[in-house]
Amino acid sequence: MAIADWEDARGRMLLDPTAVNLNTGSGGPLPRIAFERVTGLRARLAEAPMDFLLREVPPLLWTARERLAGFLGGDPHRLVLTTNVTGAVNLVASSLSLAAPGEILLTDSEYTPMRWCWERMAERQGLTLRTFRLPPMPAGPGEIVDAAVAAMGPRTRLLSFSHVVSATGLVLPAADLCEQARRRGIVTVVDGAHAPGFLDLNLADIPYDFYAGSGHKWLLAPTGVGFVHFGPGHEGGLEPAQVSWAYHPPEGSGPPDERDRFGSTPRLRRFECEGTRDICPWLAVPESIGFQTGLGLDRIRARRRELAGHARLRLTGEQGLEPATPEAAELSGGMVAFCLPRGTNADRLRQDLWKRFRIEAAVGERPDGPLLRVSANFYTTEDEIDRLADALKKLLGT
Amino acid sequence: MAIADWEDARGRMLLDPTAVNLNTGSGGPLPRIAFERVTGLRARLAEAPMDFLLREVPPLLWTARERLAGFLGGDPHRLVLTTNVTGAVNLVASSLSLAAPGEILLTDSEYTPMRWCWERMAERQGLTLRTFRLPPMPAGPGEIVDAAVAAMGPRTRLLSFSHVVSATGLVLPAADLCEQARRRGIVTVVDGAHAPGFLDLNLADIPYDFYAGSGHKWLLAPTGVGFVHFGPGHEGGLEPAQVSWAYHPPEGSGPPDERDRFGSTPRLRRFECEGTRDICPWLAVPESIGFQTGLGLDRIRARRRELAGHARLRLTGEQGLEPATPEAAELSGGMVAFCLPRGTNADRLRQDLWKRFRIEAAVGERPDGPLLRVSANFYTTEDEIDRLADALKKLLGT
Repeated sequence: MAIADWEDARGRMLLDPTAVNLNTGSGGPLPRIAFERVTGLRARLAEAPMDFLLREVPPLLWTARERLAGFLGGDPHRLVLTTNVTGAVNLVASSLSLAAPGEILLTDSEYTPMRWCWERMAERQGLTLRTFRLPPMPAGPGEIVDAAVAAMGPRTRLLSFSHVVSATGLVLPAADLCEQARRRGIVTVVDGAHAPGFLDLNLADIPYDFYAGSGHKWLLAPTGVGFVHFGPGHEGGLEPAQVSWAYHPPEGSGPPDERDRFGSTPRLRRFECEGTRDICPWLAVPESIGFQTGLGLDRIRARRRELAGHARLRLTGEQGLEPATPEAAELSGGMVAFCLPRGTNADRLRQDLWKRFRIEAAVGERPDGPLLRVSANFYTTEDEIDRLADALKKLLGT
Repeated sequence: MAIADWEDARGRMLLDPTAVNLNTGSGGPLPRIAFERVTGLRARLAEAPMDFLLREVPPLLWTARERLAGFLGGDPHRLVLTTNVTGAVNLVASSLSLAAPGEILLTDSEYTPMRWCWERMAERQGLTLRTFRLPPMPAGPGEIVDAAVAAMGPRTRLLSFSHVVSATGLVLPAADLCEQARRRGIVTVVDGAHAPGFLDLNLADIPYDFYAGSGHKWLLAPTGVGFVHFGPGHEGGLEPAQVSWAYHPPEGSGPPDERDRFGSTPRLRRFECEGTRDICPWLAVPESIGFQTGLGLDRIRARRRELAGHARLRLTGEQGLEPATPEAAELSGGMVAFCLPRGTNADRLRQDLWKRFRIEAAVGERPDGPLLRVSANFYTTEDEIDRLADALKKLLGT
């Protein structure tokens, strides 16, 4: 795709024209078509709530479920829709029952609230929690697998890891990690917050037990889309967070895994039905997927790598920052992090980037020091990355 | 207010012009101003997600919290915002710890999923669950209090009841019931799903322990608004359903009940922060409240009673249905139910009313027989109720 085409694609996004969005990793802006779709659905919910919820939603919900499952390489009958990945991981951690004593194993790079979530589970079930160090700049995925395998032991009951590490964009070899865990009888919960729309994801290739993800990042779906896909043998393992209308199947219900008249299956609806709520974001997922497949997913990924390359060039060269994300295609996507000078106040830098330059980028304190994460997407321009480089020059005095 | 004024108010609502909405009790349509507000907020969330969530939301959230708390006669520091009443009651039932053995006491008219929710709690905590029969057509609130008091015993740990019974619109004397429970050391959880915007609610007058409600019914707020207000002594009694960023207070946090920089307090945010989600409905609550206070809450309530009176006249007179809701002002609001002939297929009638007449009304099977519930609001016309009466004549052959 020529630059002009990306300009056209950018024109079809809702983007604040006064700002530079280099933080799709935290939250993606919406394609106009997805916003219009979700708003149209919500107008119908607003003007005729019960007709919409009772009669219009069911076929739309099943269509959305099939589309998302197909996009992920999953199975619509195993896809529980949630509000986000936080809800999805909490659902697993709140209801899965593990044999105590034993331990939960995490990488040292998990998203902080997810670590706390597993800590709470460990405490409730009399388990311990242990983390192992991910090689920060591995030469290849084998190094990551080796580190994980070395950490697994006979007491390990569950392994949870990020498919894409949030702080750096490092991509973990999910299939190999799950395979190694499975051989040892360890349940795997993959935190795929960043994966949908970012990686060339095919759930069928990964022998996970539970795979969770979010739609408001790289999928460019309206805020309010998440999921957990459960693997074989886990049909009955979860307990809904909330008791609502589908807690007990209605009279005359079909088999638990057969499509029902609500756009779900009795098994899935038990988790998804949480009183009257706005599930329009779920229903607009086909528009977000269609928009990106229309542009070409391979092209988008290639463009992101091109932009990440430009960021590397500008921020490591004259700027002198160290990259915190390996460059190899199998270890990274289009999200790249850089080590900031020791003593940089991360919060302050983030605020200054916004207030003085209207640049949105994630800056965080990590155990190894402060990190700046640049997440560019197809609507990003080289010029915007240059603006970040110039702003950093002024703010860091480099 | 003259009829012309109600026509004007109706014109300011989003209403399907081809349909008759007699089911605000399940879900209210939106005032145009509330829809426009929530859509505008969502456009900003769509075009600049992080700026919106990090910087724009906090002051809006606190304003909305204060407005809602003020409207309810509550305290913004004790108001946990949720998605709906289901989430609110589940939050209490999932985390409150009661002394076993003992019992949970409910009326026999609780909303089915809420009964299941308490059943799960009872099972998890080794408690029993018991229901007592509400007098179906009491002459006054005293009869209800007497029935509840007679049912309370030394083993009763918790009483949960609907402030407004969903199936019939019967209003329970919440203050007296809570007072009687309190004297006996029984924790009260009031299911106020229908109360906000329906009753002249003043939480300060009710000695409840937990009061939960929904905003998508009579408050006419966008779908996605609920709350639980906790009474004195319950500051530390709940555990969040999900672990997210606010599970542990951030470094440099202030006291737990002081307003924080997120538009919340550390105590409230622990429950409200559940990953990245769309809380725009919360932020649009001031518009929904403002719209109704602008029309005059007393006038709206009077108009609803007038319309309920018209429904009584039309459906009980020539139609010959028996009312299932008392008429006295202290026992009913503007939602009125009627007993349908034995053998009426509730599902079928509801579908026929919609398919053949485009009339939305709740029809349900109750232990005492099938019931039709008419919930009219200020945007309802006498003519619409007449259309219902005519439709019933055809469908029931009465």
